[in-house]
Amino acid sequence: MIIRNHIFICIIALLFAACTSPAEEKNTDTLFEQELARTQVRVDAIMEQGVNVPVPKDMAGGYTHEEHKRNWSTLCDAGALFTHTGDKRYATFIRDVLFEYAELYPTLPRHPTNRSYATGKLFWQCLNDANWLVYVSHAYDDIYDWLPEEERKQLNEQLFRPMADFLSVETPQFFNRIHNHSTWACAAVGMIGLVMDDDELVDRALNGLPPESLPDDLRDNDSGLIKDKYGRAGFLPQLDLSFSPDGYFAEGPYYLRYALSPFLFFGEALDEKRPGLNILEYRDGILGKAINALVLQADPTGDFFPINDSHKGMSLYSDEVVKSVDYGYYLYGNDPSLLTLAEKQGTVSLNAAGKAVSDAVAAGKAEPFRPTSVLFTDGADGKEGGVAVIRAYGAEEDHASVFLFKYAAQGMGHGHFDRLGYSFYNERGEVIQDYGSARWVNIDQKGGGRYLKENNTWAKQTVAHNALVVNQTSHFDGEISKAENFHPNLYAADISNPDFQLVSATENNAYPGREMHRSMWLLKDDAFQEPLLISVLRTSGSASASFDLPLWYKGQMLENNCDCEINNVMKPLGTNHGYQHLWAEANCKPKEGQLQFNWFHNGRFFTQTSVTDAEDEVLLVRLGANDPEMNLRRAPGLIHRRNGRANATFISVLETHGSYTPRNEIPHDPYGHITDLNLVVDSPEYTGLSFNHQDGTQWMILISNQNADPSVSHNLNINGRAYNWQGVHHLIKTNNNESK
Amino acid sequence: MIIRNHIFICIIALLFAACTSPAEEKNTDTLFEQELARTQVRVDAIMEQGVNVPVPKDMAGGYTHEEHKRNWSTLCDAGALFTHTGDKRYATFIRDVLFEYAELYPTLPRHPTNRSYATGKLFWQCLNDANWLVYVSHAYDDIYDWLPEEERKQLNEQLFRPMADFLSVETPQFFNRIHNHSTWACAAVGMIGLVMDDDELVDRALNGLPPESLPDDLRDNDSGLIKDKYGRAGFLPQLDLSFSPDGYFAEGPYYLRYALSPFLFFGEALDEKRPGLNILEYRDGILGKAINALVLQADPTGDFFPINDSHKGMSLYSDEVVKSVDYGYYLYGNDPSLLTLAEKQGTVSLNAAGKAVSDAVAAGKAEPFRPTSVLFTDGADGKEGGVAVIRAYGAEEDHASVFLFKYAAQGMGHGHFDRLGYSFYNERGEVIQDYGSARWVNIDQKGGGRYLKENNTWAKQTVAHNALVVNQTSHFDGEISKAENFHPNLYAADISNPDFQLVSATENNAYPGREMHRSMWLLKDDAFQEPLLISVLRTSGSASASFDLPLWYKGQMLENNCDCEINNVMKPLGTNHGYQHLWAEANCKPKEGQLQFNWFHNGRFFTQTSVTDAEDEVLLVRLGANDPEMNLRRAPGLIHRRNGRANATFISVLETHGSYTPRNEIPHDPYGHITDLNLVVDSPEYTGLSFNHQDGTQWMILISNQNADPSVSHNLNINGRAYNWQGVHHLIKTNNNESK
Repeated sequence: MIIRNHIFICIIALLFAACTSPAEEKNTDTLFEQELARTQVRVDAIMEQGVNVPVPKDMAGGYTHEEHKRNWSTLCDAGALFTHTGDKRYATFIRDVLFEYAELYPTLPRHPTNRSYATGKLFWQCLNDANWLVYVSHAYDDIYDWLPEEERKQLNEQLFRPMADFLSVETPQFFNRIHNHSTWACAAVGMIGLVMDDDELVDRALNGLPPESLPDDLRDNDSGLIKDKYGRAGFLPQLDLSFSPDGYFAEGPYYLRYALSPFLFFGEALDEKRPGLNILEYRDGILGKAINALVLQADPTGDFFPINDSHKGMSLYSDEVVKSVDYGYYLYGNDPSLLTLAEKQGTVSLNAAGKAVSDAVAAGKAEPFRPTSVLFTDGADGKEGGVAVIRAYGAEEDHASVFLFKYAAQGMGHGHFDRLGYSFYNERGEVIQDYGSARWVNIDQKGGGRYLKENNTWAKQTVAHNALVVNQTSHFDGEISKAENFHPNLYAADISNPDFQLVSATENNAYPGREMHRSMWLLKDDAFQEPLLISVLRTSGSASASFDLPLWYKGQMLENNCDCEINNVMKPLGTNHGYQHLWAEANCKPKEGQLQFNWFHNGRFFTQTSVTDAEDEVLLVRLGANDPEMNLRRAPGLIHRRNGRANATFISVLETHGSYTPRNEIPHDPYGHITDLNLVVDSPEYTGLSFNHQDGTQWMILISNQNADPSVSHNLNINGRAYNWQGVHHLIKTNNNESK
Repeated sequence: MIIRNHIFICIIALLFAACTSPAEEKNTDTLFEQELARTQVRVDAIMEQGVNVPVPKDMAGGYTHEEHKRNWSTLCDAGALFTHTGDKRYATFIRDVLFEYAELYPTLPRHPTNRSYATGKLFWQCLNDANWLVYVSHAYDDIYDWLPEEERKQLNEQLFRPMADFLSVETPQFFNRIHNHSTWACAAVGMIGLVMDDDELVDRALNGLPPESLPDDLRDNDSGLIKDKYGRAGFLPQLDLSFSPDGYFAEGPYYLRYALSPFLFFGEALDEKRPGLNILEYRDGILGKAINALVLQADPTGDFFPINDSHKGMSLYSDEVVKSVDYGYYLYGNDPSLLTLAEKQGTVSLNAAGKAVSDAVAAGKAEPFRPTSVLFTDGADGKEGGVAVIRAYGAEEDHASVFLFKYAAQGMGHGHFDRLGYSFYNERGEVIQDYGSARWVNIDQKGGGRYLKENNTWAKQTVAHNALVVNQTSHFDGEISKAENFHPNLYAADISNPDFQLVSATENNAYPGREMHRSMWLLKDDAFQEPLLISVLRTSGSASASFDLPLWYKGQMLENNCDCEINNVMKPLGTNHGYQHLWAEANCKPKEGQLQFNWFHNGRFFTQTSVTDAEDEVLLVRLGANDPEMNLRRAPGLIHRRNGRANATFISVLETHGSYTPRNEIPHDPYGHITDLNLVVDSPEYTGLSFNHQDGTQWMILISNQNADPSVSHNLNINGRAYNWQGVHHLIKTNNNESK
């Protein structure tokens, strides 16, 4: 037996050795355990050094600002450590720091900087005071039961209740809005109310201040009256009014990501402490829908679609999005594809939601995150247009094509003038770009990290987007006050067949007396390596006009089929509406009624084919004129220009094809395959286009322009041939052997 | 016992299950086994389809070209499969295909295209015929002993000996050069000679054709006389003349990678079949040195330094480099750091070298590849200047800073006019770029994939580089015939201290009557997050001139401390020497005697500080003027211009600092820390500079300009203080508490 046992042990030892050989070494702790360990290292180091609670005096970036900011996150982390380890050192630490704040706070006037419409006490703006209170409420909650009664009382009375009053009744222009600032304010007041079991505060947070308590002429930083058009404020009205019924957020995913934090923190706390309110089911589960809307508004690399004022590069995999994924999984149905996002995030929240996600990942429950197409409505009632995210997957498993089509309302102060614009992405990221905002967030060198003036003069303008510009003037003259009165309308959508998906929308107010109607398809067919992106844009009006349709392709042009004259002296293309920022590198005349533009980007080839009229011009443009601080990226673009018509129809087909890398220098499939793109019919009632593959196969797409009823039948005669179909659109594929 | 055994088995089963749980699933085959399996799948598929041996007629990219090209690699792969699996199907396949070639070949005239100085038979150029023969020699060797005597005889006489004669005696302008084309020719002729045991061919390959057999006026495609200046040809003279004694290749690493294949294939075959020649030790192991030179000429991401005509993005991890790494490990000393490269390449060659590498990797012998600084000499005798690659590693383990300083000879037809130029890289790739070549290799849309005219008008010109341009004219007027007569000289180098490394070189012929002397340091100090790159460039001459020192930074400018006027009308900066391709976006005047230029690239911040004279100008330029086909990248640059002086000294210090990502929007350390950069002494004998950290710490660097003898002592009085040191340069650091 001894020998046998010895062998037994040796074999086990060998197997263990094989399991843990250096080449395969891997942290076998769960995501939760790893995050807990990292947090402990971080908090222990800070506790060792000691924290400071300085008298506030600095702007963002300055010492006192950064110190108080660090404190909120250290306290919050220490609370989680106390909860999950039971180590009383963390509770003691939190208590001691809170008593320092309790000593300081009553002595504070408003912050000396006086630079905000709602100046805070700890920080230059109330927003940061509210951030502080939201996070510290978590910490306070974690130790509340551990604290002696008299210490709680002291902290409640000296620190927290005064702070909650300061952020609400003493600063109504901050608290009583339908705006993400006020979401933070309500969450802060409500969460501390829940901790202290202070019903008055909780009610104030849920329902806002009584209107009769507000001064009549009080205004917020956007000049909005605090007694505003909604006549309502507080957390519940914000849940009603901040999102569309689908969870879409008017400013887009970049701001949704930011605004979602206080919604979720307070929502989760209410769920725990006021279960009778059933907040998670409020408005048919609007918080879950908002999380869902957030994770669906990212390209295949995880970057959020940079519509409106968005900082490009903000991602599903940002730390800030961790809690949204965790809550989404934990509170709303345990969708196993969210676990894949959590794995890529590489961490979880230190709470029950994070623990659930971590356990499920460890149990191998993750499933691929492979979203399908979705149509979001905009407006609190869901009746102000929307945004479509249309996805198709290529022949190769990991290839994806996605376009975002924007027919949403203006999106408030952060909205851009790009009605019926789109952007296009593949598994490597942007292909046809939305510029995003002109801003380097928090980069002091660039205007202190705030929005740059080029955000207004360029990024918001129509020509900065893949949207139709009429008479070199932005939609609604680039004026929000005009734009916010109107929205485009979804005309038709059909995403039932993943190989042939349509979204079609109209905008009739961007230019007086002019209608625009754009229909876009993703068409997947074995004849092409990747799905085709097809656009039909019709405009009609009473007056003759000049039309510019920009294509903000990413990458480097390889060739086009135009006659181009390059400009050896470059002047800005215009003086306003964004044209002042554009150079024309070349002026081109398309040949043969068909523009073909072929480029390379990020290892792949692209070819866009468009129908042209004899007088059309093509401008090859470059961003960067009138940019004294060099704030703008030198993006290339193509402008398809048609002059002197009252009506115009632009059609184009974009192919993604082939691959190339300098590592092997072997180009695969560098040329497009589409020929003979034609507008076969174009009337107020019907538009039809056809194109061929080089092998002779032909596709024809027909759309009814005025009746989108799926049950209606259409009959159309084109070149002597009759076409009959039911529903808004119709695809006819003719194989080359049939056509010959 | 039964129960115990049962438990025993369960435990083992559990352990195995733990080892192979889905989350950790991994291919446990060795690299060699994986490559063998992939090759088998590929070759089997082709054998199933059958191969074609068409009558040659097409250019590169055409059907017959691509088919014969695919055949060489299929045959070579099939030979490896026969060797390693013993499966006779592969031998039979090779034999059958060879007999098809043996039937076709005798019927072939030269290729009908007639577009090359050395038209081939199977291909449009002999070079590809030689490629074919090199690879097929491998396959033929693999089955030679298996073939019946009479079949060998038939193949030898009908196919291989005629092909070898065709590529040598019948095409001496191709065979008898010191050029990579001839390396392929000699390898082809010699390798097939070794297979057939044909000493005449082997000798011809080693020593070239007898000079007396060559026509007097025969010229190659560069107009070189075949009876050329060396009076020698063949493989051995090529080993003598193609490399410097360090293994440096005059055209740079991009071409070395290409040229190395035939050297290594033939070298390895000679080592096996003519061991008495001791080829691996020839010229002190020059083949090993060339491999070493190749792997050391890459940035920390693995991309080769794009000096001279280089296609940017060619990498250590390209398939083509696999055999170099394998041979380097197998034939030259089993350097375990090469195994790390092999792991990243993810494959090995299907030969003894690849097997050795694969086994060593599997045995866990790989060690980190973390090269140190190296000084390469140029010229066959090592006396024509050189190239320095200076590396330092940052505080964080995976951070690296590398600069390449170029004081090499012209580099033949592929050389650029950038004497005393440099480029700079970090662990994320390029920071200060060398443009590389203006060419999209094999991309038909871009000039058929050949060198573009902008390669001459832009990429080769001095202003395209980080090198001094005098009077807006390239070095040697941009004429190779002038440039190839001269080379810069290394003045001094000191890489003994990894924290303070110097390379200094002179160039006195690029402009008549003008001397240039540039000294560059990497200085690593705990006060800075990353090593500083320091440059001192002195020029003196008899005539007053205009000096332009370009900085081809990558990324986006954040700010500078100049007064800038942007140009609302842009015209090209000049009419030739590359200036015709530059726009000036802004003209700036530096303030306060010191230019500070701060930019962001690839997640990191950079600040360059330079000393300026009161009359200096700074041009913020953008590449892309006079570029009708849009062949050039729209790179940004900065030109520091000084007019109307006979002598000038430019000094600069580049800091790498901080980090930023839009995923968290938190900038770390976005501003540089250097202040008070000064030229403290500048005479023909000595130059000295000093600069401070904001904390008051001061560094002073002194260099002797005329005596680099490490044993010589120097005494220098600066501002009343005496400095004494030994050797060419001296660093004095004064801590802030000392200086106060």
